[in-house]
Amino acid sequence: MTETISTSTTGAPRAASTDLAAETDQRAIDTLRFLAADMVQAANSGHPGMPMGAAPMAWTLWSRHLRHDPASPDWADRDRFVLSAGHGSALLYGLLHIFGYDLPEAELRRFRQVGSQTPGHPEFGHTAGVECTTGPLGQGLTMAVGMALAERMANARFPDITGHHTYAIVGDGCLMEGISHEAGSFAGHLGLGNLIVLWDDNDITIDGGVGRSCGDDQLARFAAYGWHTEAVIDGNDVEAIDAAITRAKADPRPSFIAVRTVIGFGAPGVEGTSKAHGSPLGPELLTRTKEIFGWTEPDFGVPADVRAACAAIAGRGAEARAEWDGAFAAFEAANPDAAAEWRRTHARELPRGVAEALASVPADKPRATRVASQACLNALFPVMPELVGGSADLAGSTGTAAGDPVTAGDYANRAIAFGIREFGMAAILNGMSLHGGFRVFGSTFLVFADYLRPALRLSALMKQPVIYVLTHDSIAVGEDGPTHQPVEHVESLRIIPGVQVLRPADDAETAEAWRMALSRTDGPTALILSRQNLPQLDPARHNPSATVEIVATGSEVHLAEAVAEGLRGDGYNVGVVSPLDRTRYAPSAGATRVSIEAGVTAGWDGIVDLAIGLDDFGTCGPGGEVLAHHGFTTDAVLSRVRSHLRSAEGR
Amino acid sequence: MTETISTSTTGAPRAASTDLAAETDQRAIDTLRFLAADMVQAANSGHPGMPMGAAPMAWTLWSRHLRHDPASPDWADRDRFVLSAGHGSALLYGLLHIFGYDLPEAELRRFRQVGSQTPGHPEFGHTAGVECTTGPLGQGLTMAVGMALAERMANARFPDITGHHTYAIVGDGCLMEGISHEAGSFAGHLGLGNLIVLWDDNDITIDGGVGRSCGDDQLARFAAYGWHTEAVIDGNDVEAIDAAITRAKADPRPSFIAVRTVIGFGAPGVEGTSKAHGSPLGPELLTRTKEIFGWTEPDFGVPADVRAACAAIAGRGAEARAEWDGAFAAFEAANPDAAAEWRRTHARELPRGVAEALASVPADKPRATRVASQACLNALFPVMPELVGGSADLAGSTGTAAGDPVTAGDYANRAIAFGIREFGMAAILNGMSLHGGFRVFGSTFLVFADYLRPALRLSALMKQPVIYVLTHDSIAVGEDGPTHQPVEHVESLRIIPGVQVLRPADDAETAEAWRMALSRTDGPTALILSRQNLPQLDPARHNPSATVEIVATGSEVHLAEAVAEGLRGDGYNVGVVSPLDRTRYAPSAGATRVSIEAGVTAGWDGIVDLAIGLDDFGTCGPGGEVLAHHGFTTDAVLSRVRSHLRSAEGR
Repeated sequence: MTETISTSTTGAPRAASTDLAAETDQRAIDTLRFLAADMVQAANSGHPGMPMGAAPMAWTLWSRHLRHDPASPDWADRDRFVLSAGHGSALLYGLLHIFGYDLPEAELRRFRQVGSQTPGHPEFGHTAGVECTTGPLGQGLTMAVGMALAERMANARFPDITGHHTYAIVGDGCLMEGISHEAGSFAGHLGLGNLIVLWDDNDITIDGGVGRSCGDDQLARFAAYGWHTEAVIDGNDVEAIDAAITRAKADPRPSFIAVRTVIGFGAPGVEGTSKAHGSPLGPELLTRTKEIFGWTEPDFGVPADVRAACAAIAGRGAEARAEWDGAFAAFEAANPDAAAEWRRTHARELPRGVAEALASVPADKPRATRVASQACLNALFPVMPELVGGSADLAGSTGTAAGDPVTAGDYANRAIAFGIREFGMAAILNGMSLHGGFRVFGSTFLVFADYLRPALRLSALMKQPVIYVLTHDSIAVGEDGPTHQPVEHVESLRIIPGVQVLRPADDAETAEAWRMALSRTDGPTALILSRQNLPQLDPARHNPSATVEIVATGSEVHLAEAVAEGLRGDGYNVGVVSPLDRTRYAPSAGATRVSIEAGVTAGWDGIVDLAIGLDDFGTCGPGGEVLAHHGFTTDAVLSRVRSHLRSAEGR
Repeated sequence: MTETISTSTTGAPRAASTDLAAETDQRAIDTLRFLAADMVQAANSGHPGMPMGAAPMAWTLWSRHLRHDPASPDWADRDRFVLSAGHGSALLYGLLHIFGYDLPEAELRRFRQVGSQTPGHPEFGHTAGVECTTGPLGQGLTMAVGMALAERMANARFPDITGHHTYAIVGDGCLMEGISHEAGSFAGHLGLGNLIVLWDDNDITIDGGVGRSCGDDQLARFAAYGWHTEAVIDGNDVEAIDAAITRAKADPRPSFIAVRTVIGFGAPGVEGTSKAHGSPLGPELLTRTKEIFGWTEPDFGVPADVRAACAAIAGRGAEARAEWDGAFAAFEAANPDAAAEWRRTHARELPRGVAEALASVPADKPRATRVASQACLNALFPVMPELVGGSADLAGSTGTAAGDPVTAGDYANRAIAFGIREFGMAAILNGMSLHGGFRVFGSTFLVFADYLRPALRLSALMKQPVIYVLTHDSIAVGEDGPTHQPVEHVESLRIIPGVQVLRPADDAETAEAWRMALSRTDGPTALILSRQNLPQLDPARHNPSATVEIVATGSEVHLAEAVAEGLRGDGYNVGVVSPLDRTRYAPSAGATRVSIEAGVTAGWDGIVDLAIGLDDFGTCGPGGEVLAHHGFTTDAVLSRVRSHLRSAEGR
């Protein structure tokens, strides 16, 4: 692995420390400090402390190590930089500005305003050079792990044109969050030596000193995960930071570098305290701080030598990019098919054969939609080499087996053993999707969608087409009882903006759901699948002239069919509709509408006249008995529908 | 701290290893193994492997250390035992059965059946002796941390009558979950030496060997949190387990004991593999395993010497309980007021003065409901000493400051600095509530309710009156942008069964919300509070004869009032209703109903004719501008309502 990584090390726009005078380093660092403080002051809102403390490590990283071309922020083989401590967004905007990304001073002056390119937290897709949306703590670190994994997997497939690092700056909050454990453990296990994390160790949280709530030995902790660790005792020491990053790049393990900093560095009276965290310094204190630093630039000013230094670094980045373009051209000349595949997957275009693959899934006997989904995946794998993913330790149960998993040092496989880390899995998938070149999926039981919900929300906010395979989708789970029986979960996913929630009823609908999931390139999909066997439905079952319309999804469609049959015996003209995606359900205006779903009725009651569901927790017992216990039998539902129809008719 | 802990150490029903013959130990362990295997076989569903591997540590703990009285499972000063690896429920039921808890053989035979006392995962309130609901991994460990903290805080208040340990058995899944980091870090920081965790280190997860997904050095990791660690290399070695627990009890730090076990121990062909995890052995393999063990008892049998040994241990537990009763009587005689307070708080009865305290909160000027909530808390603290809690590092921002926090070794304060650990906070609160003697609250921003959601669900499932203070409740959060702006969150909480969701509009409603939260003793409450200032409303604003009814909650009520005023100018008879709890909203049948909430419309559209909300992510910018951007101004809403009314009237 170190061999391929060295591609990027040697190709990096590395500036020997002698190239840039130490005074320019210092001025560049102060520029970042005061750009951030000026932004926060102009907005009268934001977090000046983190940028002022972390500016030296950020400058050292960006000026001496980060391989990037500000003119081509989408260059596939660039190093990735993640500001996991997203509240320090002003630091990132300052970096993007001085290095010549498309972020002019006018945008810095509009920090945190409606419609600006400088929102309060970095937002992917909003600002050139922002690799991911951060702010919800711990997720940036974990997305960085996903980016690093995607790089290793891409390297295993396209070694000639892939070799870059992923860097992250994390804060105390990131490290206290549970997801940092999942990220650290996973990255250590997979030996992601291309990942380098700098910890802004400023000893301060919003409520006060870190010591109020945490006494972790973070270096020992990351060492226990199998990471290389470094400590920089003076966060203003550019050479020490540089040396630590250099050693980290040489080490085959992921690296964790603790950099001791002072929050709000240099601002008298607030530096080193939580007062510097989340409030503007105020005009007077900002002026005084600038005086102490001997800072004579106008507000938002960038000194000429800093501009020149950044331009030189950007120039070397452009050279590295041009060099890579040459490597790609050579690769393409020698391997036109592989290069076309690379281009296709990076454009998120589906290959030929997807429809045929899905059509090949047999729909010949009753089976669970999770099993049908595994059949879809098995059919898709040969035609979609970019389709990779795994499970939070439920690959067999959820129908997401994909062969042997990737291991430390061998990233050629497509399966990922995420371990019992649902939240980590989802954030890693986000990172992989953001990296590009892959279509990714991850699975767990639907009830544990709660564990990964904050990352699923970010999938939607970042418009990433991550596919969540969520099985065991109702109380029919049975014997595992209410802790494992989703009730509110389908609805809870439907109400997150931008999430496509699909609940198929049989093999044909499962294949269609996979097609819809793969066709979507601008947002996540949740596939909601059954544990229990379901009959194959008659595809010609729709009845547009019905006066009673029963709408159901997934496992309840065949129940709806049975209920409809009973009502037809009563003489009603009944139709059954099974919208894979409820938002696409067009209610028949003239019909009396009844919904059946083994979950909460909220969300249905605005669409139908009678919503049959379950607004309480489930029960332990065999699945069929549990369904019966909660009224999900043909007789019980039929009785409720008949009673409703009679009362509606005034009978 | 060690001094008070020693109360329970000396008072424990400790059986010297010479008291119980080694053969009886072995038979008792095999009894637990085969009771579990028999249960799983009878149900044809469940997890035999964990109980068969972990039976020795469970037996050693329960027979030699756990201070409990099976006849009094609610004894306040009992040791707590948490089976965090809840899928091993059959082990817990076996323990409860042989030690004489109210769990007869007939219930073991009904394992995993509807209505049995032996559901698939342990469920609090369902089975005597089950301390908490487990199954969602990692949460049992974290609830154990909460129980241990509650014990220390109770000890600081009632040292004469409080001194017990909390024990937990955790599996690999618990330790991979992120929440285990939050739990471990928090417990280490607070020096919870009364907490002893045994790790069932069987090296197997559902999908295969632990090495597929994890290479953590768990002992080093917990040492990095400040824990005492022990390793038992043979999980069948009762004396080694005993010695490790004994050393753990003597150590002032929380203890983590790695016990190397073999999943499905002794079952030929499946032991040591994931096949033993989640499926019955099958009748033939079970019979063969019993033969290999020389096990001649009938199914569900308990040998006579094991029964006798358990009865003797239970007898010593009853003696310990009687001794404690004596200590309590002496305490009560000397401190009748304190004893009455103890009884009152353990009965979850509110003290006198709560209503008066809440009435004292001034409602004299516009302010945020988070600020009003802090005023309520400040008024409540003097009259409710049992009211304790804290924040996931947002005590100041969320209005939940409660003075200095508890620290390692000094647990007399009422504030808890949970750190940036939302999920851990909620599970710890569950553990504290389950322990008894306290009313607990925890706070974060509403958008981060997603991080703690799995534990909030368990609060509801276990009917624990945990109070969640969730602030910054809409896009009015403003500059922090969409990552920090809740949109779907209020509705996502409303749909969890059993959660009381209250969104007050001003000081009076905030005080009423606190009254409702405290009055509830059988389930959690979420208080949804604003970041921004809100006007004080006219309490006599209701208009029961309205033909247009505007229903709004929280921050949108004053907007609703302004809209109503505009409509009155048009000649409509308008009323505004602000249901604190939407489930208590009784729509006026005759009126045209309009809802206004700055969140998703799902859930409202079944209740009203026009639901005004936001079904997309928010935007970064100053709060007022963001509200305007998304249509939450008097003019914009008025225009939508007028248009709806006109079209409804056919104009």
